[in-house]
Amino acid sequence: MKFETKAELKYNILSPATLILNIHALRTPRQTVLEETLVIEPYLKAEELSSEHGENRLIRIEILKDEDITISYKAVVDNFFRETNHTDQPEISVANLDTSVFPYLYPSRYCQSDKLYRFANNKFGSIKNPYLQVLELTNWINSNVEYLSGSTNSQTSAYDTLTELAGVCRDFAHLGIALCRALTIPARYFTAYAYKLNPPDFHACFEAYLGNEWVLFDATKLVPLNGIVKIATGRDAADTAVASLFGNVSCKEINVSCKVAEEGFKPFYYKPAELKGLSYQ
Amino acid sequence: MKFETKAELKYNILSPATLILNIHALRTPRQTVLEETLVIEPYLKAEELSSEHGENRLIRIEILKDEDITISYKAVVDNFFRETNHTDQPEISVANLDTSVFPYLYPSRYCQSDKLYRFANNKFGSIKNPYLQVLELTNWINSNVEYLSGSTNSQTSAYDTLTELAGVCRDFAHLGIALCRALTIPARYFTAYAYKLNPPDFHACFEAYLGNEWVLFDATKLVPLNGIVKIATGRDAADTAVASLFGNVSCKEINVSCKVAEEGFKPFYYKPAELKGLSYQ
Amino acid sequence: MKFETKAELKYNILSPATLILNIHALRTPRQTVLEETLVIEPYLKAEELSSEHGENRLIRIEILKDEDITISYKAVVDNFFRETNHTDQPEISVANLDTSVFPYLYPSRYCQSDKLYRFANNKFGSIKNPYLQVLELTNWINSNVEYLSGSTNSQTSAYDTLTELAGVCRDFAHLGIALCRALTIPARYFTAYAYKLNPPDFHACFEAYLGNEWVLFDATKLVPLNGIVKIATGRDAADTAVASLFGNVSCKEINVSCKVAEEGFKPFYYKPAELKGLSYQ
Amino acid sequence: MKFETKAELKYNILSPATLILNIHALRTPRQTVLEETLVIEPYLKAEELSSEHGENRLIRIEILKDEDITISYKAVVDNFFRETNHTDQPEISVANLDTSVFPYLYPSRYCQSDKLYRFANNKFGSIKNPYLQVLELTNWINSNVEYLSGSTNSQTSAYDTLTELAGVCRDFAHLGIALCRALTIPARYFTAYAYKLNPPDFHACFEAYLGNEWVLFDATKLVPLNGIVKIATGRDAADTAVASLFGNVSCKEINVSCKVAEEGFKPFYYKPAELKGLSYQ
Repeated sequence: MKFETKAELKYNILSPATLILNIHALRTPRQTVLEETLVIEPYLKAEELSSEHGENRLIRIEILKDEDITISYKAVVDNFFRETNHTDQPEISVANLDTSVFPYLYPSRYCQSDKLYRFANNKFGSIKNPYLQVLELTNWINSNVEYLSGSTNSQTSAYDTLTELAGVCRDFAHLGIALCRALTIPARYFTAYAYKLNPPDFHACFEAYLGNEWVLFDATKLVPLNGIVKIATGRDAADTAVASLFGNVSCKEINVSCKVAEEGFKPFYYKPAELKGLSYQ
Repeated sequence: MKFETKAELKYNILSPATLILNIHALRTPRQTVLEETLVIEPYLKAEELSSEHGENRLIRIEILKDEDITISYKAVVDNFFRETNHTDQPEISVANLDTSVFPYLYPSRYCQSDKLYRFANNKFGSIKNPYLQVLELTNWINSNVEYLSGSTNSQTSAYDTLTELAGVCRDFAHLGIALCRALTIPARYFTAYAYKLNPPDFHACFEAYLGNEWVLFDATKLVPLNGIVKIATGRDAADTAVASLFGNVSCKEINVSCKVAEEGFKPFYYKPAELKGLSYQ
Repeated sequence: MKFETKAELKYNILSPATLILNIHALRTPRQTVLEETLVIEPYLKAEELSSEHGENRLIRIEILKDEDITISYKAVVDNFFRETNHTDQPEISVANLDTSVFPYLYPSRYCQSDKLYRFANNKFGSIKNPYLQVLELTNWINSNVEYLSGSTNSQTSAYDTLTELAGVCRDFAHLGIALCRALTIPARYFTAYAYKLNPPDFHACFEAYLGNEWVLFDATKLVPLNGIVKIATGRDAADTAVASLFGNVSCKEINVSCKVAEEGFKPFYYKPAELKGLSYQ
Repeated sequence: MKFETKAELKYNILSPATLILNIHALRTPRQTVLEETLVIEPYLKAEELSSEHGENRLIRIEILKDEDITISYKAVVDNFFRETNHTDQPEISVANLDTSVFPYLYPSRYCQSDKLYRFANNKFGSIKNPYLQVLELTNWINSNVEYLSGSTNSQTSAYDTLTELAGVCRDFAHLGIALCRALTIPARYFTAYAYKLNPPDFHACFEAYLGNEWVLFDATKLVPLNGIVKIATGRDAADTAVASLFGNVSCKEINVSCKVAEEGFKPFYYKPAELKGLSYQ
């Protein structure tokens, strides 16, 4: 399915500064970028970087004088997600896990799985099928955590959210990841453009590693799972910040949009009875 | 300097086939892609891949029925090359070389440096400054090898070219690389869009590793060195084929163009007395 | 300088279990392993793995029946550390930082630098030379945090330690790293065998990225800096656990030793006035 | 099965020189190194490096004065090969191939598959099962190429061997690889210690990529396939040289041995009727 995504970021620069932005759509076998435009006004050199091991697409802009700067990004992306089947999904065995997945099993800044071990295992430990475990914990978060704009900030972690029981998409994803890892299910964070997200903004979800594939979950249930354009994956929000600002910089405005660019979109949501998942990998 | 590059490739597919194309401009700290469009007609899924270790940008298209297919690629690219200085350039010491450079020191399919050891050392071994060695061997190739379209094919190697003394840009680059490696100077091949190449086509040049940076050389001297938009780097043409075709496929047409997209272009060529180089890294 | 290191780990296995151990000495250009022996009693298959991107050396052992198991590791290692000079060390500029260093700039599970920004900048922000910043914060930790065995556990983070002001080597390192990152200095954690550590145990220190090299710091000041044999590096202890145990496993005993294996060891400690550092990279 | 391997290399150094040796046994999930000793006499610093992307284990020794140097390596290695089954092995489809395998599909210095396309397809193109294709071409090499010590040198390639019809293990492997690649079967070279190789020396074989696993083939048929201790893998011998010598160095002596270190070894050879393979991965 083709989507047209846009992001416009406006900054007020008050000292020499460096911006690192992670707003480009990922380019993968299942996510093809057909068109892409980056406009920087006033025009400045932008370095194209990839994150440590090539996963994410960064641009770095160095600004030497005080000015207002606007970065506009636009892309047409075609996504080829895959339906996955989790009937009789066996438990994850650490004895067979590839080392590339290990980092997503250990606690991270915003996903302190080591502190949620008792909670996760008391609540979800008795479920045998790990797909159903993740589905259940996703449902639990959706039912028990209130989606409340402005209730959290960049320091809020999964551990905080479990106490506060309020947050935004980022917090929902962090809690989902932390609970997965506490159940020995590798899980990772991702940022995305999302169709039908209202009000429009960058979105955050998570993926759980089930049967050697990364399967998509969204505890907010705000958008159809097949309306996602991935931007970046990482252990948590610390790895995937949309914007990292160094210097005296203030963000004045962020505008995001994501529309379908062809006909025939049918929204997809998980139904527990069907044991189906969706993978963008 | 901003360039607008275009490539249009037309294929006639006569059986189920797989195309792997390497025509996207590289995205690096010194080469920013501001706009990019890929059009496939009739429309088919294209997987975006990166070569083994993330260097090059590939697309793979699987075609299941007989048809004619046209792939059009267009990009606006901004390049920030750097002038390098090679006065008192010390000899390359293998004792300090980073292992990431080793592959470019060993012989490869089209650059049999092991067979050119005596020739290279007899001709250029007495020159002390390795920058001047590469400049001299580049000049030697330019003076002694005739640029002759159609004189060689996809099996022609540096060893052949040294005997035949005729070839195209690919052959000039292979011979340059083989001679560098025979002098214990790491060297790698790259494909490019090139401004002022006449007739317009994909271009091929090489880079030598001097003073911990990859410095650009072009033994054809057909284009200014600062008019290059890089596509792919590798050991030789085997790593960087513009198109790899699997199945019964015939290429009907290839159109390539590269224009400047802003004012003020001043062509740059090496002058031995100045000991200056150009790096796109 | 040559060191002989030993580790003996005894486990009681009460159910099918998987052990992942990270006790092998790193093999790097500046740390050569001349002899190495691994003994598993009773003998079981051990898979040799490397962590996600080849940094650390892991062994994974799957144990299917209840039994007592002893893993013994012994190595003779030759270290070639390098003295670094930090006179006129310029401030770190994010505009020039290599992306491979970014992960060590962001907060992680045990090093919540985002929460220590005000503290770090109030205390150490006015110091100009980043080497001196790290030296000062190391001294501050050493003077203000009490080294107290058993005062902390596997959930204790830098944020906790700044309140409790007590901990062990792991906590000292985490706090050092968190403060560095809060000052925009990349910093990473490492585990090590350490000469003269009393009582003998695995040790943990940290490295700060200064002038494009990783420079060693140890806020515990328990051992000479040139008596270190590195085991693993990572963002924090979550990446570098000596043992990760999955299943019903209890650790019965850990014995560690590190001796010099040649004459002439002269202990090295930092002296602020000298602006010298030590790098094992 | 446990093996004890030894290598002793003696060099006469006549000028400042750099040696890069690739004699350490690989450490992988299916090849565990239990004991390992490196002795350099007279003692010199040896840097431990890994090849470009971590595959192979190198040591680099810089020697500044004229002297005789002896490098001795000894290891006890436990190998856990796996039997693979190739009944109904489907043809390799480039449309599904992982990019990490692409380099082993293209021609390389000693394996000019592009020049052997007609030969390979005429001889083996009609066989449907790719496992049987590789088995047949291996048998063809074994029957038609004479194993003759000293008949070839470091410049001899697969193309030469197909004309000369004589060579050593290295040439047999290169020809096997070139023919596989000409049939669109990815294939790679490896060096090894081999049990029962007579006279004792380093051995070279190849692996073909069949059903997403690397399966072992040895066209020399000199040793049982389950008696292999892998040293290095690469595109061909250019990537995996046991010793790369830079400077005025002469090799005086090489002694290699490989013995079983436990009871019960049963030699394994391929039998076409059984469609079984052996994988060390």
